Amino acid sequence: MKNAYLTKSKSYLKKELEKLNKEYVTYKSKKLSLNMTRGKPSPEQLDLALGMNKVLIKKEDYISKDKIDTRNYGDLTGIYECKKLLGDMCGANPENVIIAGNSSLRIMYDVIAHSMLHGICGNKPLMKQGHIKWLCVVPGYDRHFAILEYLGIEMINIPLNDDGPDMDLVEKLVKKDASIKGIWCVPKYANPSGTSYSNKIIKRLAALKPLAKDFRIYYDNAYSVHHLYPNKPVNILSILDEAKKAKNEDIVYVFTSTSKISFAGAGVACVACSDNNKKDLLANLTIETVGFDKVNQIRHVKFFKDFNGIKKHMVKHANIMRPKFEKVVSILDKELKGLNIASYNRPLGGYFVSLYTLNGCATRVHQLCKEMGVSLTPAGAAYPYHKDPNDCHLRIAPSFPSVKEINDATKILALAIKIASIEKTLSNGKN
Amino acid sequence: MKNAYLTKSKSYLKKELEKLNKEYVTYKSKKLSLNMTRGKPSPEQLDLALGMNKVLIKKEDYISKDKIDTRNYGDLTGIYECKKLLGDMCGANPENVIIAGNSSLRIMYDVIAHSMLHGICGNKPLMKQGHIKWLCVVPGYDRHFAILEYLGIEMINIPLNDDGPDMDLVEKLVKKDASIKGIWCVPKYANPSGTSYSNKIIKRLAALKPLAKDFRIYYDNAYSVHHLYPNKPVNILSILDEAKKAKNEDIVYVFTSTSKISFAGAGVACVACSDNNKKDLLANLTIETVGFDKVNQIRHVKFFKDFNGIKKHMVKHANIMRPKFEKVVSILDKELKGLNIASYNRPLGGYFVSLYTLNGCATRVHQLCKEMGVSLTPAGAAYPYHKDPNDCHLRIAPSFPSVKEINDATKILALAIKIASIEKTLSNGKN
Repeated sequence: MKNAYLTKSKSYLKKELEKLNKEYVTYKSKKLSLNMTRGKPSPEQLDLALGMNKVLIKKEDYISKDKIDTRNYGDLTGIYECKKLLGDMCGANPENVIIAGNSSLRIMYDVIAHSMLHGICGNKPLMKQGHIKWLCVVPGYDRHFAILEYLGIEMINIPLNDDGPDMDLVEKLVKKDASIKGIWCVPKYANPSGTSYSNKIIKRLAALKPLAKDFRIYYDNAYSVHHLYPNKPVNILSILDEAKKAKNEDIVYVFTSTSKISFAGAGVACVACSDNNKKDLLANLTIETVGFDKVNQIRHVKFFKDFNGIKKHMVKHANIMRPKFEKVVSILDKELKGLNIASYNRPLGGYFVSLYTLNGCATRVHQLCKEMGVSLTPAGAAYPYHKDPNDCHLRIAPSFPSVKEINDATKILALAIKIASIEKTLSNGKN
Repeated sequence: MKNAYLTKSKSYLKKELEKLNKEYVTYKSKKLSLNMTRGKPSPEQLDLALGMNKVLIKKEDYISKDKIDTRNYGDLTGIYECKKLLGDMCGANPENVIIAGNSSLRIMYDVIAHSMLHGICGNKPLMKQGHIKWLCVVPGYDRHFAILEYLGIEMINIPLNDDGPDMDLVEKLVKKDASIKGIWCVPKYANPSGTSYSNKIIKRLAALKPLAKDFRIYYDNAYSVHHLYPNKPVNILSILDEAKKAKNEDIVYVFTSTSKISFAGAGVACVACSDNNKKDLLANLTIETVGFDKVNQIRHVKFFKDFNGIKKHMVKHANIMRPKFEKVVSILDKELKGLNIASYNRPLGGYFVSLYTLNGCATRVHQLCKEMGVSLTPAGAAYPYHKDPNDCHLRIAPSFPSVKEINDATKILALAIKIASIEKTLSNGKN
């Protein structure tokens, strides 16, 4: 990417900056309050699932197909029909699915806490294995990294290429270092880059042979059905199937949830894994809970019916989300055309747009936006320890605001990028 | 308690045993399947809350009083009106309540896992403090003990007297041993003894000054409104209030839930504690979840309205439960009258009857019952490591079966007690 400002004279840039700063002052005076920080569904999306509370009325409605009274205690792995529903969604047999609570983050934390406190499949607790490391595909999901930071686990950045993580580096590291115990992956429409892993990368992950016996891939398939273009969905292989083929079934835990399908705060989440891993996790879960909320499980099943029902429902989400994403991209296209001062993905699904500024500009862009009344996720948030080595990445979350708000916020964002880029170009000693 | 069989001759006892064994054979041939193992509500009790799924219909129904859309992410501590509802129930200000998921066991485990992995209020993680001990009031709740056993924490038995734990022993131990980090308490209608702590004991607990700064009372107020005689409810002091008065607020975590009020698998649970403890727990919870299920919170609030609504609802539960408990006690009274071979409590609330056989007989009674088609919780279950030092305690759970089933099962239980007692008396070398 060649910054177009580099070819301009210092005096031109100063004049340009002056002009842009006038726009900045105008925006600032408007005292706007626009928010593109949060990867949360809009009220219109949540309304799509309002029917969920009309599916359980009579006593009989609460009884699962295999005669479980979902209102009572027990049945730790969940009801079969919900395991089938979420299993279909994340490429797992129902028998290999454990339905958890309302949040996939919680069950991810739980699986890691289990590995720390008790150890995986008979291995020593990680907490008693000394210094522990983890591979983090970057940019990635801030809350994945927050768990590791909280637990004092060292994070190692793995670059995310267009087809997935840099597998040469992953394979090299895990083969030689037994203190590396995991890797965070978001394989489809990844947070925040929108990247989907190629089947080749998924096969390499599935066949991974790390030195540490208790190394696992923590595979957060959060956006498996979150297409923006449901007629042209991205399809990826099931990593559980591939791991089975590679006789390497224990390598991966797959997570998913309906958080961004039904209600963000009141969905159902699951973990899917090999028989060994499942047995090992259940030994932990049976200690820590009498069972998860099965009423919410059967509520989801009655509302969505089956995986096809979920797919149909997601078309309605896509119709709300697509114009918002297209608005972000079209404004950036228009405002930044020819300047080569930013790049961004054109997502096919998921919840975010990844934006790359010139190196050293992301923090400044965030600050300028804030001053003009637009909240963005802080620069660096998508990196372990909040440290973007190049200070160039910003995560744009267009799901919650209206199209009109996105229009205004993205124009302001583009303005901020221009100002920061000229400032940077000038400070770099441009003649 | 003086065993009446002791005064009988060997030949009398042998004849009596022969007679009882005929009854045993008759029962055995009936191939019954009666279950008194599970402290779970009956379907009739669950039906009482069927209206819960008619309270959330329109979009507006999902919005809390302070304008939180319960369907979306966020608001980690829960909605205010639910904190008020559960706070009133367990003697806490709403500001000191964190609403958690569907199970209080889960949030208890979570608080302990937090203390293990990260340490309480700036103290070292328990996992890195070497050998850790815990006080366990016995008999107690098997799942409390299972958590500690799973985590490798040594459990020390504390006898439960009629007014609560042996506080002389508790105070003595915690004052001298900094490796003791907690005590499990069930202060009201305790599982399984039905005991309620006296206010004097609660004050002593609230004023406890342990050597370990990270010692806490884990106070599971699971049965706060679970009266069998709602006209004569047992009322106990709020330990949080007492701890505040004693300037010892950080000493206790209080847990409760609606599991046995609304739906056993789909209630709302909470932890209530001091400002310090709350802040400390939130630092952990904010890492492990985006938030708990607030839709279920508002569902509970709309259904019960307020604490008074819960109390009214619990009268309906009591009307179902009371005849079952009275049936157990009346059959035991009738069958075992004058024999002095068993003692049992006459619960005023809760979910269990504690039964004490002659020493060394509980395992045999359990086995005999099983052979006659009655499942009881295994002997020893109410003790750490499943080890009842005197092999004399059995936990009877009358909530789930019908009154008719309880009638039959308790007769069989009484028969088993008689057989085991005579066997024991004979084997003890009775002339």
